[in-house]
Amino acid sequence: MKIIPLGGLEQIGMNITAFEYGDSIIVVDCGLAFPEDEMFGIDMVIPDVTYLEENIDKVKGFVITHGHEDHIGALPYILRSVNVPVYATRLTMAIIENKLEEHKQVESTKRHVCTFGQTIELGDFSVEFIKTNHSIVDAAALAITCAAGTVIHTGDFKVDYTPVFGDAIDLARFAELGEQGVLALLCDSTNSEEPGFTESERTVGTAIDRIFEQYSGTRIIIATFASNVDRVQQIVNSACKYGRKVVVEGRSMVNIIETAEPLGCLKIPDNTLVTVDDLKLYPEAKTVIITTGSQGESMAALSRMADGTHKKVTIGPGDTVIFSSDPIPGNEKAITGVINKLLKKGAEVIFQDVHVSGHPKQEDVKLIYTLVRPRFAIPVHGEYRHLKAQAKIAAELGIPSDRVFILRNGDILELDGENARMNGHVQTGGVFVDGFSVGEVGSSVLHDRQKLADEGIVIVSLALYYDEGVLAAGPEMTSRGFIYEKLDEVDENKAEAEAALREAIMDCIASTDLSNGQNRNRLRNTIKDCLGSYFWKRIKRRPMILPIILDI
Amino acid sequence: MKIIPLGGLEQIGMNITAFEYGDSIIVVDCGLAFPEDEMFGIDMVIPDVTYLEENIDKVKGFVITHGHEDHIGALPYILRSVNVPVYATRLTMAIIENKLEEHKQVESTKRHVCTFGQTIELGDFSVEFIKTNHSIVDAAALAITCAAGTVIHTGDFKVDYTPVFGDAIDLARFAELGEQGVLALLCDSTNSEEPGFTESERTVGTAIDRIFEQYSGTRIIIATFASNVDRVQQIVNSACKYGRKVVVEGRSMVNIIETAEPLGCLKIPDNTLVTVDDLKLYPEAKTVIITTGSQGESMAALSRMADGTHKKVTIGPGDTVIFSSDPIPGNEKAITGVINKLLKKGAEVIFQDVHVSGHPKQEDVKLIYTLVRPRFAIPVHGEYRHLKAQAKIAAELGIPSDRVFILRNGDILELDGENARMNGHVQTGGVFVDGFSVGEVGSSVLHDRQKLADEGIVIVSLALYYDEGVLAAGPEMTSRGFIYEKLDEVDENKAEAEAALREAIMDCIASTDLSNGQNRNRLRNTIKDCLGSYFWKRIKRRPMILPIILDI
Repeated sequence: MKIIPLGGLEQIGMNITAFEYGDSIIVVDCGLAFPEDEMFGIDMVIPDVTYLEENIDKVKGFVITHGHEDHIGALPYILRSVNVPVYATRLTMAIIENKLEEHKQVESTKRHVCTFGQTIELGDFSVEFIKTNHSIVDAAALAITCAAGTVIHTGDFKVDYTPVFGDAIDLARFAELGEQGVLALLCDSTNSEEPGFTESERTVGTAIDRIFEQYSGTRIIIATFASNVDRVQQIVNSACKYGRKVVVEGRSMVNIIETAEPLGCLKIPDNTLVTVDDLKLYPEAKTVIITTGSQGESMAALSRMADGTHKKVTIGPGDTVIFSSDPIPGNEKAITGVINKLLKKGAEVIFQDVHVSGHPKQEDVKLIYTLVRPRFAIPVHGEYRHLKAQAKIAAELGIPSDRVFILRNGDILELDGENARMNGHVQTGGVFVDGFSVGEVGSSVLHDRQKLADEGIVIVSLALYYDEGVLAAGPEMTSRGFIYEKLDEVDENKAEAEAALREAIMDCIASTDLSNGQNRNRLRNTIKDCLGSYFWKRIKRRPMILPIILDI
Repeated sequence: MKIIPLGGLEQIGMNITAFEYGDSIIVVDCGLAFPEDEMFGIDMVIPDVTYLEENIDKVKGFVITHGHEDHIGALPYILRSVNVPVYATRLTMAIIENKLEEHKQVESTKRHVCTFGQTIELGDFSVEFIKTNHSIVDAAALAITCAAGTVIHTGDFKVDYTPVFGDAIDLARFAELGEQGVLALLCDSTNSEEPGFTESERTVGTAIDRIFEQYSGTRIIIATFASNVDRVQQIVNSACKYGRKVVVEGRSMVNIIETAEPLGCLKIPDNTLVTVDDLKLYPEAKTVIITTGSQGESMAALSRMADGTHKKVTIGPGDTVIFSSDPIPGNEKAITGVINKLLKKGAEVIFQDVHVSGHPKQEDVKLIYTLVRPRFAIPVHGEYRHLKAQAKIAAELGIPSDRVFILRNGDILELDGENARMNGHVQTGGVFVDGFSVGEVGSSVLHDRQKLADEGIVIVSLALYYDEGVLAAGPEMTSRGFIYEKLDEVDENKAEAEAALREAIMDCIASTDLSNGQNRNRLRNTIKDCLGSYFWKRIKRRPMILPIILDI
């Protein structure tokens, strides 16, 4: 059996792993990654699946562990070239279908809803869905079996003995598989640096209850992750308990509720939900608004409320705003910005201890390893530091270091029933999605964007009489994003720069046969050198300099 | 007395506050702010001191609380227009002088070194320096007295009963002034959201000792803030205790040691420091490298080691790297990047519990308020959430809410011996420093940079026969940072766009008298509209479109 992670290692997001045996490949998850700060203008990053495309005849299907963007977000893009059936549990599939609908791909995609305990046959593989807990309902671990043995992929999970919806993680099944012998365990590393156990989602319900009790005299606005159906359920529960009407704000929050409720994953009593327009019919202290924007996303409903640009909700003294979320690394400043604005409008803001993680901490990881007793440990889902931390845990549990594999994306790990070895590497990477453009923005465009952002651009345009190589018009200097608002507003600097430039251009024209197209580069370089050194000497800046030469 | 914060409120950094009475103004601190993510290409932000410039005859001096950039960094720039004497304690002044030297301003700046307990007379004010503790040696609080009464400005401080260098904070003096009556307290709000007390700097020494003991078999590399002389001292102490030679890496770290040691603020025994070139003369386990880069700064020594681009230090298994620092909000991802790289090179990385804050937590704040018993509370140094948190503490301590002022930069707070009231507002703001350019980059340049970064630029150039208004050359399309690497590599899209553009231009030329310069705008707008809608329809992108029209 070959295990080939095509994404998700040494990064946050873009989870996708191929399992190959004989003529069969199955793919676990197909996620996107959100762009890093330096990926200017990029909407999302999806995995390079060249390996799947080149082996398309072998690929039997996508098996999806749960409905988070970093596990399903790239599906609509990847299905275009790797159009194989998709297998997932109920809510996961419903969320995928929402996504396919947006991309008009429902018809063209074969979909199979699976249940926990069910085993599906995919070529040389059989795959069993095992119940786990996570910050989204219907998350599954996968037991992937072929002739070489059984491998368990935990997906994202936590151990919750008292989940809000459905059963606790099926620890008995993990134990049973462990008894039968598990070749390898691919286990969620996200929280492997954190000591202790991850608390039950239900503890958040208790915290919310307490806040509803304490702030019984104010309107409550509570922001959380749209996909956390259990969290929404608990807010609804508290609202009912304390006699508040519930308003749901934010497109993705409305979507998930409309998706989860018909499936029975979310139970909202009649006469609980009201529209935002009906808010005014109730005393403020008898309402709660559940909203998106817990990560400070600038266009989300909570941010618009904080900015005072939300059309229906005005924040003021008498509002209590709860962040039922932790900051995702990188979002701290945006969140602080929203908190500052809410406080300035007079709201009370609560941003601590109203959240628990959806990922296993060290003791949870030890529990799963101890039940599964894998021959090989393959930490997944996380940056290198997280993978390394889980590798340490595996070592503590007595797994010899030559049986712990910290893989990189693209590595091929080959396993038989006994041994494992690294054997080669396939092409992987991130493909940038920018508007409708997929894969056209490459690193040199990003490099240009960085340069433009840091220094701006100065454009020098001139026209030449083609045949004679004589200046017909210009040079004209125009700039955008450079030091000066408009270059022509600038005093002696601009005049001096232009004079120097004109002289350099005239010299170059006089000494070069410009009717020879090849020589144009000499003129271009002259312009770049002349202006470049001028700006560097004067103001220690290196704007991008772009000469444009028109031929008459 | 008027208190006019010119910076430092509702922001991190750029601390500067004016105190005015009669014909006298004194200014406490003169700091810079580091640019926010969206301030592309900006090196630093300095305060707008128009108010000081307009009242230059009144300004008696800058009184500086301590030597951190957010309190002294703008001095060289501001002194150019507000050239008044600078008062500071010894190490603070030495750091300021380093800075003035870089800017060749030592000669032109009057400097007065002050001692703790000393009172200086500045026009209608007298200012007393009071010993405090902070994450830099020689930090001072100021008791500012005029006929209206005494105001205490804490500067940045912590309460450290067992400081590494010098005395503990002079609580007795705070108490004494409290006895005599304090009109207002301007107190550091940075940690006002944190419960409890801030731990002594000395606890970090204990932690470092423990790590030196535990990792006695490996080389140790320890990153911290250059300005934290006490931290450096404690690392040196541990090194001596465990028989290790010390190498100092990073320009700012070398600078601060060269500045602090001659003043006696730092004591390094003979034969302790060695050069990085001599590292190889000693067993690795007998060396420690103190380095900059604890915030993941890309050009700092630690980042270069992690990248494998440091000329003298190669990280590998057998290295223990310690982050003796907490992440400053916004730096989390950069730090994680460095940690990942260090781990991948095989180093052990320790990044928890080897740091304490330099700012007071809630119980420390209560202590100072209780000693000082101010009539008015003015929380300073922090974002709104921090100021608000301190205002809450003041309320808990029984200060009536109408005596707590959360000011904004520029607010004028007028105090007599009894009453305080807001009375007007002066001009304030951030001035962008970009290379040698101070204040020339404004919001519209930044707006352009944002647009260029997100979408890139498409330039359309053409030449016209001026008199006839007839196309002489072009239109040519060139792009940078747009979807496509080079527009001309693009297939039918480019051809189609150019055809549409040519047609629109010809139509416009035919229907408009372009020899009338005013009508050029119509041609420009035609180009923008035509290409803009083309790109939006095709790829949902809105690049900046820049038409350039040359006249022959």
